[in-house]
Amino acid sequence: MNNQIIINDVGPRDGLQNQPKVLTVEQRLSLINALMEAKLPEIEVGAFVSPKAVPAMAGTADLFAALPNTSTVLSALIPNMKGFELAMAANVPVSSLVVATSNTMNLKNIGMSTEASVDVSRQVLAVAKQNSANVQAYVATAWGCPFEGAVDPENVFRVTEQLFEAGASNIVIADTIGAANPLAVHQLMVGLASRFDSEKLSCHFHDTRAMGLANVYAAVEAGIRKFDASIAGLGGCPFAPGASGNVATEDVVMMVEQMGFSTGIDMPLLIKAADLAIALTGTATGGKAKPWIENHYIN
Amino acid sequence: MNNQIIINDVGPRDGLQNQPKVLTVEQRLSLINALMEAKLPEIEVGAFVSPKAVPAMAGTADLFAALPNTSTVLSALIPNMKGFELAMAANVPVSSLVVATSNTMNLKNIGMSTEASVDVSRQVLAVAKQNSANVQAYVATAWGCPFEGAVDPENVFRVTEQLFEAGASNIVIADTIGAANPLAVHQLMVGLASRFDSEKLSCHFHDTRAMGLANVYAAVEAGIRKFDASIAGLGGCPFAPGASGNVATEDVVMMVEQMGFSTGIDMPLLIKAADLAIALTGTATGGKAKPWIENHYIN
Repeated sequence: MNNQIIINDVGPRDGLQNQPKVLTVEQRLSLINALMEAKLPEIEVGAFVSPKAVPAMAGTADLFAALPNTSTVLSALIPNMKGFELAMAANVPVSSLVVATSNTMNLKNIGMSTEASVDVSRQVLAVAKQNSANVQAYVATAWGCPFEGAVDPENVFRVTEQLFEAGASNIVIADTIGAANPLAVHQLMVGLASRFDSEKLSCHFHDTRAMGLANVYAAVEAGIRKFDASIAGLGGCPFAPGASGNVATEDVVMMVEQMGFSTGIDMPLLIKAADLAIALTGTATGGKAKPWIENHYIN
Repeated sequence: MNNQIIINDVGPRDGLQNQPKVLTVEQRLSLINALMEAKLPEIEVGAFVSPKAVPAMAGTADLFAALPNTSTVLSALIPNMKGFELAMAANVPVSSLVVATSNTMNLKNIGMSTEASVDVSRQVLAVAKQNSANVQAYVATAWGCPFEGAVDPENVFRVTEQLFEAGASNIVIADTIGAANPLAVHQLMVGLASRFDSEKLSCHFHDTRAMGLANVYAAVEAGIRKFDASIAGLGGCPFAPGASGNVATEDVVMMVEQMGFSTGIDMPLLIKAADLAIALTGTATGGKAKPWIENHYIN
């Protein structure tokens, strides 16, 4: 069993995107630096989306320009070809496409069907191939959609296959609205891991209904070793009613480290980054790991 | 696979015992009635402990006298023979002994070693047998102790065996301080279920470190079908530093029902009971299930 678990902190994107307070590029940079200091192996830095539609993500190109050379894998969300072109211009190491398995969610989110969204992704991935660019894809609303309800696992298998075939380097199976339960997570991820290379699969959970860590554990049991998490539990999904709170990075790290996995993350510096996220946004409450980490690693 | 999961709500005892506000017998009665209306199959009503040491549990005999005839299994905590005698006098259907696997915890909690505590339990269980009384036992600090750290599973196996042999009807494996992680839960409960009748084992988790539901899921996967939980997440352990927040009943019920298990509990009335617990104590915040339950069962 692989003893390493890779955490991708999505706080600077999925987290900040939904905070009522829009941070400056400098503030976002300070948070990303704090995460790099805590030795996060991967960080989602921002998004190349319309600054009018999502003011919190304006200046993402400036952010990449200001970041130091690093071994941390930095990524950015791209909604379409335009976003990919901007990401390439900004020398973004990894770009992330999103396809929702639910047609209704896809239509409400980006105004096109799941099929049309897969087609756009194919076009982006073809250009990425020509440019040797690393593009991964999110399969969103994989366990449930606020409009359509439960999602047929076959839809997730099909979209995942289409995106891998088109050249996606990694697929993130995302519980966009916090609808998953651990049994459903285990079943879907066992199904995916039997069909695809589990090292190219990761999971993205929200703690909307207190099941965030239960879902991470269920995915670990299914053989998944890569997880999105958000520092201090920042986040949510602006287009999905009722979605709030990504699973907190510090809580995921505490759990998997205590289970005997290694994340390479510096726990006291991770708490420092969480405190900064709380101070910067004024709304995040942080995970539940802080007292335990302070007791074990700091005092 | 047994499709039924039995929930024992410990809010009126483990929950209220640690609230800063001491409720009247009438207030406690109203909470227990609300839980019975929500069709909780089991409820921990109170404790026969010193009213000076634990004022919140004073009047537990009056509480039992005031309760209607019910099919709900009602229980009370008893620290020793004196407590058991009081429970018998009050016609308590199920009495619950507690033995901590950690010597230090046992000494700090009740002033005797684990071995001495098992001896006391043996005496109580012998008298219970003569009187055909139902006495179960808690094996506390089963995954970790605030004073001794990690607990050797062999200690848990030994104490569990001793208590079953002495006649305990059921053993509750308790993560008294919220130290468990789901992998440790799975391993310990698989070990226990292979040694003893899994229908006579249940688990008691706190959500101190956000792993409450992950631990419930891990125990379900190990074959456990009985769980303690506390309405609105009331609770903690007064003798264990850093222990707070039993796993919320409404969250456990939501998760296991969504996983396809049946609890027989009325979800909207459960939320009503949680709202009452919050109103009565003024400190409980409630679980995270309320919006989801309201959306699925009430609206």
